[in-house]
Amino acid sequence: MINAAIIGASGYTGSECARLLACHPRATLSAITSRTHAGKRFDEMFGHLRGHLDLAFEEFEPAALAERAEIFFCAVPHASAMHIVPQLLAAGKKVIDLSADFRLRDQQTYETWYQPHTAPRLLDQAVYGLPELYGKEIGSAKLVANPGCYPTSAILGLTPALRHGLVDSDGIIIDAKSGISGAGRGVSLAALFAENHGGFQAYKIGGKHRHIPEIEQELSKAAGRNLRVSFTPHLLPVSRGILSTIYAPLNDAISDEQLFDIYQSFYGECYFVRVLPPGRTPSIQHVRGSNFCDIGLAVDRRTNRLIITAAIDNLVKGAAGQAIQNMNLMCGLDESAGLSQVALFP
Amino acid sequence: MINAAIIGASGYTGSECARLLACHPRATLSAITSRTHAGKRFDEMFGHLRGHLDLAFEEFEPAALAERAEIFFCAVPHASAMHIVPQLLAAGKKVIDLSADFRLRDQQTYETWYQPHTAPRLLDQAVYGLPELYGKEIGSAKLVANPGCYPTSAILGLTPALRHGLVDSDGIIIDAKSGISGAGRGVSLAALFAENHGGFQAYKIGGKHRHIPEIEQELSKAAGRNLRVSFTPHLLPVSRGILSTIYAPLNDAISDEQLFDIYQSFYGECYFVRVLPPGRTPSIQHVRGSNFCDIGLAVDRRTNRLIITAAIDNLVKGAAGQAIQNMNLMCGLDESAGLSQVALFP
Amino acid sequence: MINAAIIGASGYTGSECARLLACHPRATLSAITSRTHAGKRFDEMFGHLRGHLDLAFEEFEPAALAERAEIFFCAVPHASAMHIVPQLLAAGKKVIDLSADFRLRDQQTYETWYQPHTAPRLLDQAVYGLPELYGKEIGSAKLVANPGCYPTSAILGLTPALRHGLVDSDGIIIDAKSGISGAGRGVSLAALFAENHGGFQAYKIGGKHRHIPEIEQELSKAAGRNLRVSFTPHLLPVSRGILSTIYAPLNDAISDEQLFDIYQSFYGECYFVRVLPPGRTPSIQHVRGSNFCDIGLAVDRRTNRLIITAAIDNLVKGAAGQAIQNMNLMCGLDESAGLSQVALFP
Amino acid sequence: MINAAIIGASGYTGSECARLLACHPRATLSAITSRTHAGKRFDEMFGHLRGHLDLAFEEFEPAALAERAEIFFCAVPHASAMHIVPQLLAAGKKVIDLSADFRLRDQQTYETWYQPHTAPRLLDQAVYGLPELYGKEIGSAKLVANPGCYPTSAILGLTPALRHGLVDSDGIIIDAKSGISGAGRGVSLAALFAENHGGFQAYKIGGKHRHIPEIEQELSKAAGRNLRVSFTPHLLPVSRGILSTIYAPLNDAISDEQLFDIYQSFYGECYFVRVLPPGRTPSIQHVRGSNFCDIGLAVDRRTNRLIITAAIDNLVKGAAGQAIQNMNLMCGLDESAGLSQVALFP
Repeated sequence: MINAAIIGASGYTGSECARLLACHPRATLSAITSRTHAGKRFDEMFGHLRGHLDLAFEEFEPAALAERAEIFFCAVPHASAMHIVPQLLAAGKKVIDLSADFRLRDQQTYETWYQPHTAPRLLDQAVYGLPELYGKEIGSAKLVANPGCYPTSAILGLTPALRHGLVDSDGIIIDAKSGISGAGRGVSLAALFAENHGGFQAYKIGGKHRHIPEIEQELSKAAGRNLRVSFTPHLLPVSRGILSTIYAPLNDAISDEQLFDIYQSFYGECYFVRVLPPGRTPSIQHVRGSNFCDIGLAVDRRTNRLIITAAIDNLVKGAAGQAIQNMNLMCGLDESAGLSQVALFP
Repeated sequence: MINAAIIGASGYTGSECARLLACHPRATLSAITSRTHAGKRFDEMFGHLRGHLDLAFEEFEPAALAERAEIFFCAVPHASAMHIVPQLLAAGKKVIDLSADFRLRDQQTYETWYQPHTAPRLLDQAVYGLPELYGKEIGSAKLVANPGCYPTSAILGLTPALRHGLVDSDGIIIDAKSGISGAGRGVSLAALFAENHGGFQAYKIGGKHRHIPEIEQELSKAAGRNLRVSFTPHLLPVSRGILSTIYAPLNDAISDEQLFDIYQSFYGECYFVRVLPPGRTPSIQHVRGSNFCDIGLAVDRRTNRLIITAAIDNLVKGAAGQAIQNMNLMCGLDESAGLSQVALFP
Repeated sequence: MINAAIIGASGYTGSECARLLACHPRATLSAITSRTHAGKRFDEMFGHLRGHLDLAFEEFEPAALAERAEIFFCAVPHASAMHIVPQLLAAGKKVIDLSADFRLRDQQTYETWYQPHTAPRLLDQAVYGLPELYGKEIGSAKLVANPGCYPTSAILGLTPALRHGLVDSDGIIIDAKSGISGAGRGVSLAALFAENHGGFQAYKIGGKHRHIPEIEQELSKAAGRNLRVSFTPHLLPVSRGILSTIYAPLNDAISDEQLFDIYQSFYGECYFVRVLPPGRTPSIQHVRGSNFCDIGLAVDRRTNRLIITAAIDNLVKGAAGQAIQNMNLMCGLDESAGLSQVALFP
Repeated sequence: MINAAIIGASGYTGSECARLLACHPRATLSAITSRTHAGKRFDEMFGHLRGHLDLAFEEFEPAALAERAEIFFCAVPHASAMHIVPQLLAAGKKVIDLSADFRLRDQQTYETWYQPHTAPRLLDQAVYGLPELYGKEIGSAKLVANPGCYPTSAILGLTPALRHGLVDSDGIIIDAKSGISGAGRGVSLAALFAENHGGFQAYKIGGKHRHIPEIEQELSKAAGRNLRVSFTPHLLPVSRGILSTIYAPLNDAISDEQLFDIYQSFYGECYFVRVLPPGRTPSIQHVRGSNFCDIGLAVDRRTNRLIITAAIDNLVKGAAGQAIQNMNLMCGLDESAGLSQVALFP
């Protein structure tokens, strides 16, 4: 059994890693930390795991922790992660970082969108943890930067079209909608139930969301040239789920069947991507709680646009599930070990 | 007092007309019809109106009804409306039709998207009932075609930009999200609670929704040339509300303040359009139950796009409220009579 | 016009008072205060009132405020209210206090359930603001203690049965369910969207909720003897609404029609109580946004119990609406002035 | 591997059996039937199982089906089940019936609450499938009557208290709240999203719900005498989950710790019952998607009542999960095989 630890396990991302590790057949969760809840039992905060996990939160003490686990999930906010990750790597541990701190290859881009980086030399070592694109590199990585939730849906949705040159890389629009757990478990007026129930709105409109450079980094690679996207995130009144509706101008006419074949063959080996047949549309309720990304494809022939819809559970394929998938690859396990959860519907 | 009747009052659109008429200071609801519920009291089906409305559903008998009301809200589905409306007009009555049957000026376009039209000569007489654009014509109309819910948000959101030539009329994308009451009150698997709770999906992707020709008709007028849009509707897990997120390429650089001023001055006289100041974003929970359309404006300078977000309550400004607004104009009342409802938040 | 002010207008209760005053035909909202948001415009925090209310939050300065309003809604938490209310009364103003501070007649009971009371001599002057029971006293009151939300539903539901001796006053069980706005607008983990969506639970089980003494005070009066109730509150995943399901042993057999007649005649003059005919069941969605209390009556003949279900909107009849109703009575207006809102359904 | 088949797999109960069997380590789903959807692929109706289940619905043809499975889940409505189950038993198959047809031991009681029974001789052979109480009998049963969802929560919640004589068996009140999937997947106005979102109501008030005789049958056994309960079901605006709040008069004073110990020891061997420590309260969101029943215990000392709260997922422990648990016992597998799902929170 592989011993794993979670740094920052009291948020939604960290606790979801715990949920998934609790029934992983080849890994054991051996330690969880939380600065603010040290000493408290995990199942007092997360009753759904009662009986599954007999651990209490601890302070983050790298030396002591290093003896108890070989792989670490770092689920603290960006800017904090860049201080913790180097300590774990220095102790010879493998690290999957769920923050944004090691996702961008370019230090300057990072610093433009976030704040100064204190561990920039790790940017080159970190592997972008999207297994469908970087499976091989992840297999030998010491540090994996787990992708953002929005980027996961956008990149999986667009990469085949860009790689095959189906669409004009100018003119891409990503209209994304996320469940509210994406805002994290920190208390805030904006995340209150009564503020959101029956509600819906966009936020950070006009090219302001920090996931933009991450999306552009990966789509530019796929396109073979630097591109820019319009990205508008919205807040759905659900707990979990992201649906990205993506618009891109088609270069040439293409049939639904051709499109399906191209995507199907691109993701042929990828267990966690389900390309839906023509006429089918992904729904977030069909991936809820699972590690799948469902992709739907349609052509608007009146305007010659490709419209891609991509659905994931933001806490699973968009965070913790993808992190487990990365752990599996880094540890030589089957990619889907511990990720057999069927989506919960209804 | 004006006597009004509702044809087809057992659906969400018709019952919402009843809710609004129940407390209208200058109009009285004198008759309601329903083919399937004739004989049943209204408040047995709609407990929220208990004590407000002492009426039972009747069969549609035009001659008898004509004596009891001077203005009619026709809230039956398209294809049915085209049979009912001519009878009411022939009896000398004013009609506000909430179906799609008289919204399109061009018979052929109608028949391409719907089915054969049996009363095509009325297409020219009908006034498109968007008071912010056609207030004067509505004032003297006998037949008003109440706009669709999606079109209301899209047209109000885009018209000022098109009229002022701010955006390229090619390249408009409307990503719209609607609450489930928009699907009507007919029973269907797709409208069940458990199918939608916690869920979200797009539908009729790829230029297939019947509101497209209506949107294009009005936006083409605003642009002064024929244009086409990409329009993707989505199903939000809420009862009420539409948010349209609209993308259009900017012709020239423009500041947030200039944008705001143009929209503010365009809608200066329009009580029911609230142009939000720069930095503010509309939310469907801030228009819920009210007749307002909230419009937010942002520029994505990285990609030179205008991003407009427009929020309405699909049953009020998107249907019944707009119909009352039209009635007010057709009857010489204050445009906002009976429409003073403040949005219900939280 | 009556000038009214709201002390503590940034919470859900205070802002709901503002919503209702914004369209009150005989009263004007002249000032709003908030300790934490002084200086901020109201519609920046509450976008649904944009265009309806042109006020900014102020500090609470009793002398200055006293000149600008004749009646005050005090919507600050208990323990704070007992400091503010005496100052307003001393300035000769009428006060409707929405906290618990003046609801209990017995100081010792108050101090057992809350904390020491600093203005105990006002307990005798305060009138319990349930207009259906104390309309006359409210008419001449200077200080009205606006009832709690749970007590409003329980007391309206049970009083006729107790007054008529239909039920054994031992053995009353009140199983109450409230929307999450009842927890207020303060940020807390327990009130987050993702903690509650799709969820449901009881809280303060076992006779611990502070509304118990208030319920018992009023039900004891109705019964003519001291009684105790079992009261269990639950948290519904909705924004608004309370449904109380109340069980009481019947003293004698009674038909559904007799029950209905007794309740109907008890509430005959009360516009805001709708006693539903036999076989009808109240729903919170049928009172949402309105000041109605819907009451349903059923007999379980197998166990000889009366089962009363009472539905209100916790922010309207359970708080702000009832406060306006009290204001109307205190100011000699029609009881329902400004409270004509029809419930918002769906 | 055990081959299992589902009769009636297009409803929520049947499809949930499919979800659980799809990842069962020791059983294979070999056939599914549906009268109305025969010929259609399962994953066209249930997209969440795409990739997990490569089956299409078939007609129910007992002879052919009997060769393809050794155990059958019968998930058709009551009255239909009594015709299907005998055919499967006659073919020598084991059957778990999820309808009400074989739950009641007494034919007359069944016929009073339902309709005439066409297979009454099976009533004695059927074992009531609550493994925590009848594990041994289930192990050797040919026909297991899977309990109703409400009864599961009520019986698990009350049995220890009744067996130990802690409470007076007169005076039990069960106030139960269920998610809307409990109403099934049949289309009806009452189950529409917009009718229920933001709503809440009781139904079948006054001793009318068909689960009452089932609850009374099992609680009477536990009490050792015939008892009657007051049972009021409510409709929660969530997809999944039941919380029953149960009130029972205590015979003698008892501490929270004593209560906990009694329940804990009663359910000591029962993996799927989690007795929460004093002060903890069950939530439906902590059992969602899992086969657990969480039980909370509190004493209301002011009124000397025991208040039990019991939470389950109505589709899992209340239906399909319990059915799999029964299958495991009937087939000599580990009771929890294939039921390792951790609850999905948030």
